[in-house]
Amino acid sequence: MRSYIAELIGAFWLVFCGCGSALLAANAHVFADNVGIGLVGVSLAFGLSVLTMVYAIGPVSGAHLNPAVTIGLTVAGRFQNKHVVPYVVAQTIGATAASLVLSQIVMGTPTADPATAGFATNGFNALSPGHYSMLAAFLCEVVMTAFFVFVILGATHKRAPSGFAGIAIGLCLTLIHLVSIPVTGTSVNPARSTGPALVAALFGHADALGQLWLFWLAPCVGAVLAAVIFPIVVSDEEAAAPAPSVALES
Amino acid sequence: MRSYIAELIGAFWLVFCGCGSALLAANAHVFADNVGIGLVGVSLAFGLSVLTMVYAIGPVSGAHLNPAVTIGLTVAGRFQNKHVVPYVVAQTIGATAASLVLSQIVMGTPTADPATAGFATNGFNALSPGHYSMLAAFLCEVVMTAFFVFVILGATHKRAPSGFAGIAIGLCLTLIHLVSIPVTGTSVNPARSTGPALVAALFGHADALGQLWLFWLAPCVGAVLAAVIFPIVVSDEEAAAPAPSVALES
Amino acid sequence: MRSYIAELIGAFWLVFCGCGSALLAANAHVFADNVGIGLVGVSLAFGLSVLTMVYAIGPVSGAHLNPAVTIGLTVAGRFQNKHVVPYVVAQTIGATAASLVLSQIVMGTPTADPATAGFATNGFNALSPGHYSMLAAFLCEVVMTAFFVFVILGATHKRAPSGFAGIAIGLCLTLIHLVSIPVTGTSVNPARSTGPALVAALFGHADALGQLWLFWLAPCVGAVLAAVIFPIVVSDEEAAAPAPSVALES
Amino acid sequence: MRSYIAELIGAFWLVFCGCGSALLAANAHVFADNVGIGLVGVSLAFGLSVLTMVYAIGPVSGAHLNPAVTIGLTVAGRFQNKHVVPYVVAQTIGATAASLVLSQIVMGTPTADPATAGFATNGFNALSPGHYSMLAAFLCEVVMTAFFVFVILGATHKRAPSGFAGIAIGLCLTLIHLVSIPVTGTSVNPARSTGPALVAALFGHADALGQLWLFWLAPCVGAVLAAVIFPIVVSDEEAAAPAPSVALES
Repeated sequence: MRSYIAELIGAFWLVFCGCGSALLAANAHVFADNVGIGLVGVSLAFGLSVLTMVYAIGPVSGAHLNPAVTIGLTVAGRFQNKHVVPYVVAQTIGATAASLVLSQIVMGTPTADPATAGFATNGFNALSPGHYSMLAAFLCEVVMTAFFVFVILGATHKRAPSGFAGIAIGLCLTLIHLVSIPVTGTSVNPARSTGPALVAALFGHADALGQLWLFWLAPCVGAVLAAVIFPIVVSDEEAAAPAPSVALES
Repeated sequence: MRSYIAELIGAFWLVFCGCGSALLAANAHVFADNVGIGLVGVSLAFGLSVLTMVYAIGPVSGAHLNPAVTIGLTVAGRFQNKHVVPYVVAQTIGATAASLVLSQIVMGTPTADPATAGFATNGFNALSPGHYSMLAAFLCEVVMTAFFVFVILGATHKRAPSGFAGIAIGLCLTLIHLVSIPVTGTSVNPARSTGPALVAALFGHADALGQLWLFWLAPCVGAVLAAVIFPIVVSDEEAAAPAPSVALES
Repeated sequence: MRSYIAELIGAFWLVFCGCGSALLAANAHVFADNVGIGLVGVSLAFGLSVLTMVYAIGPVSGAHLNPAVTIGLTVAGRFQNKHVVPYVVAQTIGATAASLVLSQIVMGTPTADPATAGFATNGFNALSPGHYSMLAAFLCEVVMTAFFVFVILGATHKRAPSGFAGIAIGLCLTLIHLVSIPVTGTSVNPARSTGPALVAALFGHADALGQLWLFWLAPCVGAVLAAVIFPIVVSDEEAAAPAPSVALES
Repeated sequence: MRSYIAELIGAFWLVFCGCGSALLAANAHVFADNVGIGLVGVSLAFGLSVLTMVYAIGPVSGAHLNPAVTIGLTVAGRFQNKHVVPYVVAQTIGATAASLVLSQIVMGTPTADPATAGFATNGFNALSPGHYSMLAAFLCEVVMTAFFVFVILGATHKRAPSGFAGIAIGLCLTLIHLVSIPVTGTSVNPARSTGPALVAALFGHADALGQLWLFWLAPCVGAVLAAVIFPIVVSDEEAAAPAPSVALES
C-alpha cells in the first residue's frame, strides 16, 4: 500500500513540475522579455522531478511514476504482475490530481485565459507543437520510450554502479525532452498525457483526449521492445565478452 | 555553536548567489543582447548554492539554510527542539547580511537605480512577477515546500544511497524555481524572503515587508505537511511491500 | 558479440539525441519565439546521451560509442586490438541508422524541406556554422578529442573514485560542445560525423561527405595524442609526488 | 613533476573551454539568431572544465588549476609550501598557452576582427561587462573566492562523502559565474585572468594587463579568508554539536 501512495505522490510531482514549468515559466515575460525557461528549462524540470523522486521514494516503490515503465519492468521480469494495475491506477490518479491543482495556480493571474491557456497536453498533427504527423509522433514516442526503459533496466542492473540510477534515469528524461518536445510535447508516459488531457477537457478542450490512445500505445510498445532487447545486450551472467576498458565496474 | 555559524554562512551563500544571480545576471545585456542567464540560470543558482553547501557544511549543521526545513525536520523527529530558534535566527541573519553585501555590489555600476533596481523580493498580486493572486501564491508555496521537505526527508533517509543527498536536494530547489519564479519569485524559505524584504525597505521599498507573513506561513505549513505525510509513505522498518525493481538499494 | 550490439545501440542513441536535438529543437518556434533549446540544449543532449549509455551499457562494452575513443583506448593499452574493427563498424552502423530514423521524423512535419533542412553534419569553411577555416577546424577537433580521451582515461583509471566516470565523461562531451559547435558543429567522433553525412548525401547534399576525412583524421590524431600524453601525467604506481590535498582518494 | 604537468594541462583546459565558450559560442548567430549559449553556457563551461579535471587528474595533483586555490589550501595546512611556486607557475603557463591556442581558432573565421574580438579578459570600470566599479569588483571577487575555497575545503574534508568533491567544486565554479560575469567577467583565479590579459596585449589591447593586479589580489585575499574561517566552522574532531539530521554521513 505504501508503494501505491508513493507512486501517486511521485506522479503528482512529475506532472506538477514538468507541466507546471511549461505552463508557468517556459515563455514567461517577467522582469523582462526572453527570460523564460524555454524548452531547456522544461526538459530539466521533467528530468529533475524524476531524479528527486528516485532518491526520495526509490527504496519504497522503485519510483516508476509511469505506466510504460511499470509495464516494461514487468515484461522484463523485474516487477510482479499483481502490482501492475494498482501502480498504473495510482500513477494516473496522481498525474490527474497534479493537473487539477496546477490549473488552479495557472488561472490565478488576471491575464490567464482558459480558452488559450494550454494545458501541456501531448498531441500530433494540429496538436503537435511543430505540427508533426501521427506517424512521426508514433515513431518518436516508441524510440524514446524504448531507450528510456532500456536505460532504466541498465542503470538499475546489479552490475551498474550503485546509487547513480537516479541521476542516469532523471537526466535521460531530460534528454528525451530536449529532443522531442517539438514533436509531441513529449510523453513517453501515459499517465503524464492523461492528467492534462482530462483537465483540458474539463476546461472545454477535448481534442487532446481524442489523441490519448497514441500516448498509451506508443510508450507501451516502446517499453515492451526495451524489455525484449535488453537481455540480448546485457547478460545477467559475468561477461564472456572482452573485458571492457571503460567499464564502470572493472 | 559551530553549527549555528555554519547555518549563517550557508544562508548567506544561498541568498548572495540566488538573489545575486537574479539581480546581476538574469537580464544582463553584456557583450550582446539576450545573453542573460534568465530564469533557468537563476533556478540553477539557487539549487547549486544548496548543493555546494550540503557538501561543504552538511556534516556540521545538516545544511538546512531554511527555517521551514528546520521546522519540518523537527516535526518529523529528526532535529532537536532546543536548536530550532538558534538555527532560524542564524539563517535569517545570514540571509539579511547577504542582501546587504549584495546591494553594495548591485549599486556599484553607474546605471544602477535604487528606485527601480528590485531586490529579488518575494510577493503576490502586484508584487508577483506574473501578478498571481494571494491564493495562487499560497497554494504554490505550500505545495512546493511540502515536496522540498519530503525530498529532503527521503534523500537523507537511512535507506537512500549515501552521499547523493546534496545532489537530490540542491537540484530539487532548482526544479522548484524552474516552475514557480513567475508566481511568487519562489520562496519556500522564510529567511530567503526576509533578507531582501528588509534591505528593500532600507532603500525605501517597504511593500515586500507587508507580504512577508505569507512567506513565513506557507512554507512552514508545507514543511509540517511533509513531516506528517512522509512516515505514511516511507517506513523506518524493512518494507513489507513488493520488492521494488528500480529501487536504489536492492 | 553482446558488446558489439551494445556499441551499435549506444552510438544510435548518441546520434539520435545529439543530432536530433539540433534538428528538431535547437531553433524551435513552438508555443512562442525564442524557446528553442539553442546550443546549450544541444550540448546537454550530446553529453547526456553518453552519460545515460555509460550507466546503461558501460559494464557490457565500456560505452565507447566513438571510433576515436576506441582507438585512443587501444593505443593506451586499455583495449584489445582484435575488437577495434568490429567496434568501429558497429558504431558507424549505429550512427547511420540513427540518422536515417531521425530523418523520417524530421520530415514528418508539413514545413520540413529536404533542401534546407540540414542534417547536423560537421564541416569547415562554408560548411562550418561560423565559417571557420580548415586549419581552425582541424586544430579545434584535435585539441577537443585529445582532452576528451584524456578525461576518459583519467576518470576510468583505478585511482579515480568509482562510479563517477559516466558523469565526468558525459559532461565532458557537453563541455566540448558548449565551446566548439560554432567551429565545426563539433565532431570529436568520426561515427557521429559519418551517419549524418551519408544521410545528407541521400537527400542530395553531398558536400559534407567531401569533408568527412577531417572528422576521421583529426579526432584520431587527438585520441592518439591523449594516449601518449596520459601515462606521462598519471602514473599507474602510487604517486611519489606530493600527496595531493584536494585529491579525491586521499 | 607529474603534478606540475597535471596542473599545467588542467589550467589549459579551464581557460581553453571557459574563455573559449565565451569567445566562440556565447553570442553565436549560427543556424539562427539567439541560439548562442549565453552566460548560462559560459558558466557551465567554466564549471565543467574543473569537474572533468578533478576526475581526470585529481588523484595526481589535486586539480587546483588556480593560484588562489593553491594558496588557500597552503594557508589551511593542506598543501606543502615548497610546491606553491611551481604550481602557480605551471597554472599560469597553462592558462597562457590556452589563450594563445584559442586565439588561433578565434581568428580562423573571415569575420573575426582582432580589434573588437575581445579575449574574455577580466576587468572593472570600463572593462567590466556591466561597468561595475573597482570597489564592487574587489568585493565581489573576494566574497566569491572565499566561498569557492570554503567549498573546496569542505567537500574534500575527510567527513564529506567521498567521490563527490568534483561535482561540488565544479558546480560551485558554475554558480559563481552565474552570478558574477556581469561584474568582472568572473575571475576567482589569477591564472585565468593572466592568460587572456597577456594574449590581448599581444593583439594590441593592453588595458586588461593594467587591471590584472586586482585579479591576483582579491582572489588571494578571499582564499586566505576562507582558510582562516573554515576551521572555525568545521572541526577536525568529531562534532560535539547536535547530531545533524540532514548530515551526509550520519
